[in-house]
Amino acid sequence: MGVAAVIMAGGRGERFWPSSREDLPKQFLAFDGERTLLQRTVDRLTGIAASGDVWIVTREDFAGLVSEQVPAVPARQVLLEPQGRDTAPCLALAALHISKVDPDAVMLVLPADHLILQAERFREALAAAISVAASGDHLVTFGVRPTRPETGYGYIKIGALNGMNGLHEVYKIAAFTEKPPREQAMAYIQEGGHFWNSGIFIWKVSSILRALQGHLPALMEALKPLAAAIGTACEQEVLRRVYPLLPKTSIDYGVMERAENTVVIPVDFGWDDLGTWAALERVALPDLDGNIIRGRVLAVDTKNSVIQSAKNRLLVTFGLSNIVVVDSEDAVLVADKSRVSDLKAVVGRLEAEGLEQHLRRPRIGRPVEER
Amino acid sequence: MGVAAVIMAGGRGERFWPSSREDLPKQFLAFDGERTLLQRTVDRLTGIAASGDVWIVTREDFAGLVSEQVPAVPARQVLLEPQGRDTAPCLALAALHISKVDPDAVMLVLPADHLILQAERFREALAAAISVAASGDHLVTFGVRPTRPETGYGYIKIGALNGMNGLHEVYKIAAFTEKPPREQAMAYIQEGGHFWNSGIFIWKVSSILRALQGHLPALMEALKPLAAAIGTACEQEVLRRVYPLLPKTSIDYGVMERAENTVVIPVDFGWDDLGTWAALERVALPDLDGNIIRGRVLAVDTKNSVIQSAKNRLLVTFGLSNIVVVDSEDAVLVADKSRVSDLKAVVGRLEAEGLEQHLRRPRIGRPVEER
Repeated sequence: MGVAAVIMAGGRGERFWPSSREDLPKQFLAFDGERTLLQRTVDRLTGIAASGDVWIVTREDFAGLVSEQVPAVPARQVLLEPQGRDTAPCLALAALHISKVDPDAVMLVLPADHLILQAERFREALAAAISVAASGDHLVTFGVRPTRPETGYGYIKIGALNGMNGLHEVYKIAAFTEKPPREQAMAYIQEGGHFWNSGIFIWKVSSILRALQGHLPALMEALKPLAAAIGTACEQEVLRRVYPLLPKTSIDYGVMERAENTVVIPVDFGWDDLGTWAALERVALPDLDGNIIRGRVLAVDTKNSVIQSAKNRLLVTFGLSNIVVVDSEDAVLVADKSRVSDLKAVVGRLEAEGLEQHLRRPRIGRPVEER
Repeated sequence: MGVAAVIMAGGRGERFWPSSREDLPKQFLAFDGERTLLQRTVDRLTGIAASGDVWIVTREDFAGLVSEQVPAVPARQVLLEPQGRDTAPCLALAALHISKVDPDAVMLVLPADHLILQAERFREALAAAISVAASGDHLVTFGVRPTRPETGYGYIKIGALNGMNGLHEVYKIAAFTEKPPREQAMAYIQEGGHFWNSGIFIWKVSSILRALQGHLPALMEALKPLAAAIGTACEQEVLRRVYPLLPKTSIDYGVMERAENTVVIPVDFGWDDLGTWAALERVALPDLDGNIIRGRVLAVDTKNSVIQSAKNRLLVTFGLSNIVVVDSEDAVLVADKSRVSDLKAVVGRLEAEGLEQHLRRPRIGRPVEER
């Protein structure tokens, strides 16, 4: 039995502007200053999936970034979506490709833009999940043990224990719940039995294709011309033609919430979806003043803030608390930390204000003055 | 009787970092985006002193900036201090020069880095002061009617009315007082009769030379070799030799506080010494959110702040109040507005932190990346 790791790397990241841009989303950024989230996602699979077993689904315009950042992944396994149609079409596309190569493969689905602090525990959980998926027809997902009443995540309510795999419990899924209000999230934590929806899935490629056919027949029907074209010269052309016609739906809503054969493995490996600048506080070690500082910064009387300077530029902060300051070559963000979850809306205003040039990376190699 | 307007343009401006630098102090900056404070100081003299009547005392390393910004001022009237020795040596130097050209001149002393909103009223007051100075032996200064209990200024307590000049009252000076604590400043305002020390002086060149000789004889003695060298080829060389030997003292402390023939004219022409970034709020019109914004800025839910972006760079602020954000080519300042009066101390730390390159302007014409 082979493993095929599918990394979903098509997301756009307004929430890390100005570091992220339309043409450089979050998954391509190195928050630790060394390896990008995409690279870490591949690195983390060591011992589970070699580069030759990795598939990446991304957008056509990110093809260059992907081949730059993870050159060891075979080019034919980098699938280029002509446009974003949410995760169900994305994963159907990947499953069709993989089933042509290895119809018995176990498929791992991994978002490219999440952070996992404890890679070894992640791999242990993944090994257990692969074993569960391989030995039956289950659609397996990870439920992350909640550490705070987070209102930005979906939750999974566990049902009956389905069995154990090594040290890992495997539960039936009782319900998926949307992003809850705060009291609800608090109740979930107190009550127990509720886990964060990690967006990580493990299933046999045959299982997910069967499930897609059963729950999203229109999607699979629309993909038929593509299935026939895979491996031919006109593959991308066919993809471009059919993709805009696919129903825009998520794998959670389209399949997981409808299927009977879903199971969840509770995990606890330091997962974070890194949804906002403020999230860096949870995943990096703050200094004695509670600051997360990157680059050339002089922080004077500054507390509990996230401060990131751009290469060779100096950032001086003075007398502030709970702010986010992020510099870049052509733009600076200064925001109240409690507001950065709404950053997307602010960045969305740039176009209306005639400032859309700052939505994309500045052109390289020209002095700022001349731009 | 001729008029010689002496503009003191030797100050260093850490308090407007990163717009001001060691090699580009405040007086050379255009806060209104059009004319620099030095240029406005010359402009403001229209009808009182032509460019040919203007003298500028500055530091040797600012000679280029002065000739660039006010090219109409004759080069021989730009006096270059080898180092800063406070205002008494600076004005003694100017007085010696002027007396060689016109021993009967009335000398106006004007700081280059202050702001005056009502130029016409300023000129009216200046005309009155010139008339008072010319008709006797008085050392005249302007006392600015206080509009708030400012603790950052010196105050002048008026004594008996000495007379009127047109609509202007002229008072004997009862006392100079240092920067007062807040309650004291509040009492001055309630009590009346106390005015801000403007640092503007009007006197006959003969009057100030006599006063300097009387109150600072050591200074005048030390300047003797220079007085003899003025107009010769070795003038600057002699200046460089004697200047370090001069007592470092201010004209206020060295002369004004000791002399008997001082008078003050209360004025009210929108004067501000523009001491901090926060001062911009007093002299520019805030927008409806109370913000003073310059350059390419998107201020979202931002109130009562001073936000200034550097050329072509974008500054986005979100969810903040009472902050100062100033961008520049190589550095950004983000500070609590109530703290910017202490900015000098913060900038003073740059050297100890190995960041002294940001104390001076970045070299021009090279991309930021390469620096």
